[in-house]
Amino acid sequence: MSGTPELELAGPGSALPVVAVDAMGGDHGPEEAVRGAVTAVREFGLRALLVGRRTEVASLLSEHDALREVPVVHAEDALEMHEGALASWRRPRSSVAVACHLIRRGLAHALVSAGTTGGIVATSTVRLRTQSGVVRPALAVPLPTGEKPTVLLDAGATADAKPEMLVQFAHLGSAYARTAFGMHRPTVGLLTIGSEPGKGNKLTRKAGELLTAAGESGALDFHGNIEGHDLLTRAVDVVVADGHSGNIALKTVEGTASFAMSAVREALTATPLAKAGTFFQRRSLRELRDRFDSETYGGAALLGLHGTVVIAHGSSRAPGIAHACHLAHDLAAGRMDEQVRRRVQHRQSSWFNRFAQHEER
Amino acid sequence: MSGTPELELAGPGSALPVVAVDAMGGDHGPEEAVRGAVTAVREFGLRALLVGRRTEVASLLSEHDALREVPVVHAEDALEMHEGALASWRRPRSSVAVACHLIRRGLAHALVSAGTTGGIVATSTVRLRTQSGVVRPALAVPLPTGEKPTVLLDAGATADAKPEMLVQFAHLGSAYARTAFGMHRPTVGLLTIGSEPGKGNKLTRKAGELLTAAGESGALDFHGNIEGHDLLTRAVDVVVADGHSGNIALKTVEGTASFAMSAVREALTATPLAKAGTFFQRRSLRELRDRFDSETYGGAALLGLHGTVVIAHGSSRAPGIAHACHLAHDLAAGRMDEQVRRRVQHRQSSWFNRFAQHEER
Repeated sequence: MSGTPELELAGPGSALPVVAVDAMGGDHGPEEAVRGAVTAVREFGLRALLVGRRTEVASLLSEHDALREVPVVHAEDALEMHEGALASWRRPRSSVAVACHLIRRGLAHALVSAGTTGGIVATSTVRLRTQSGVVRPALAVPLPTGEKPTVLLDAGATADAKPEMLVQFAHLGSAYARTAFGMHRPTVGLLTIGSEPGKGNKLTRKAGELLTAAGESGALDFHGNIEGHDLLTRAVDVVVADGHSGNIALKTVEGTASFAMSAVREALTATPLAKAGTFFQRRSLRELRDRFDSETYGGAALLGLHGTVVIAHGSSRAPGIAHACHLAHDLAAGRMDEQVRRRVQHRQSSWFNRFAQHEER
Repeated sequence: MSGTPELELAGPGSALPVVAVDAMGGDHGPEEAVRGAVTAVREFGLRALLVGRRTEVASLLSEHDALREVPVVHAEDALEMHEGALASWRRPRSSVAVACHLIRRGLAHALVSAGTTGGIVATSTVRLRTQSGVVRPALAVPLPTGEKPTVLLDAGATADAKPEMLVQFAHLGSAYARTAFGMHRPTVGLLTIGSEPGKGNKLTRKAGELLTAAGESGALDFHGNIEGHDLLTRAVDVVVADGHSGNIALKTVEGTASFAMSAVREALTATPLAKAGTFFQRRSLRELRDRFDSETYGGAALLGLHGTVVIAHGSSRAPGIAHACHLAHDLAAGRMDEQVRRRVQHRQSSWFNRFAQHEER
């Protein structure tokens, strides 16, 4: 793959990060991934390359007359949709595995894929490894709360979490909120049941104690427990959860929003009169639909690895892929890895911790 | 309290179950509870009594000219809103505790309260005790899926559940769906992450195995894993979850629905033209609002105890209390306890189990 001359662009000395787009992932196949990468390059001015079956991808690129703008790296295999954790072993030459290889070699800095979440999490965790001091990676997703999103993590990377991991997730989420959304000192909440301290299950009760201690030490801005109905009220900037609760919460938000939107559509077209009313509401209703459209949020970021990984929604079309590239670019350019290193690694010993905090001030 | 002559109605020999309404619970105080009980008696033809401070409740009843229709049982104390698990010990003479006492004595058959969930669960679990064979009670809530609801349980009674408890919850939920909604052989799903068998965290993977076995034996109609976005799609009749995940899912549904409805309201009144359009949609929009109104669902039922307990939403007004009384009546009249006894108790040994199944056919 070093034979592609454009790849020189991605050398370690250059300024802009390079986003490797998985051409083979997603429900809509390479067409949308290729169009998304071309959009990212032309409209957002990013640097992107495509990983996938070369002839197929090149022929799609030539349709956009973009063969000289977006380099292609060949990968003979691809993860199947719904392929789970075993994918990393079963498909060592998948487009996702090849993209990880590019990141490890310093030829790319971020991966964007609309493929299977389980497969991408497994493959990139094995191939990129967690950063020193990070026990498990976490999947961070911005919730559609309005102008400023609330970041929810972990949305499903680590199903069985330990209390200590939730504290690390709080640090990962804080670094992410700062890098992706410019929140200087993000507030953190713990997703559990019951808003008072000491409520919840065993895991969240213990995690609540640790997070309270981290808040008192100044390491985090911890605001206490958050319940399910606070997820969309901008109660905090970052919501921390174990991967099981976080995934259920995220999918419940998505499912309920889509259920509510179709109930609204039904109500507004139930009678000819009601339907006539929508004539005056076209613009408002379009804006409403866009607000609940998951594609505008860029996708889920897998945090805590050596390298940036953004997983776009499986149903993403080109704009969704392009937004995911934008997010991946911002995270890589903002040196998320460096922030996480400072936050997590230095907190391993309290002796070290005191010096690290002093240095940060 | 046996001095009240109307209480004779509630003797064990009479046909209609008696619903004891907690006059002191809920955000809106005794006014709404009293009006709700009167509505239940007059409009639904149920038998209800009120438990609370006698003079206060009686004076409210006399405003409705209902002193001879709804008996009052005195309780000098009440659970504070947000009072948690310790309430049962701290307030032995609360209205909820007195209502439980009436149920134990056979003078009432069901409790309805809009008070603090934590306090009611703790008080009624201690005072009514779990049915023989039931390890922990579960809170069942119907989700607003449309004509037929989907029942979610446990919505928060048991935060740290064991896999075996989730199987019991499946039985409790099936008996409830049958009694409250006439579902003859309800389908059951397990709330977890990932739809394929073997996905999820340790708890749900193990529970999935046990539920699959129960499905194969014919004891349950188990349909496999359910994800967060399937909660409102009528994928199954009963969704089983541990109390932590179930509570997060329920509150996330409520929060997202309310968020979506206010976004719709905002969009439809954003411009004078859009607002003009709503003139033609008044009826449809009112129906839409009612559909997402939690008060029409009657409240959460605490299952697995000796006696029926229904917890109405804290913000319930009189119609919400009346619907909760209706649900409590149906559960008590349908002999939920008897169904649960047959389902759970007889399944404790497989030897017993085989006979119990044979007998049921």
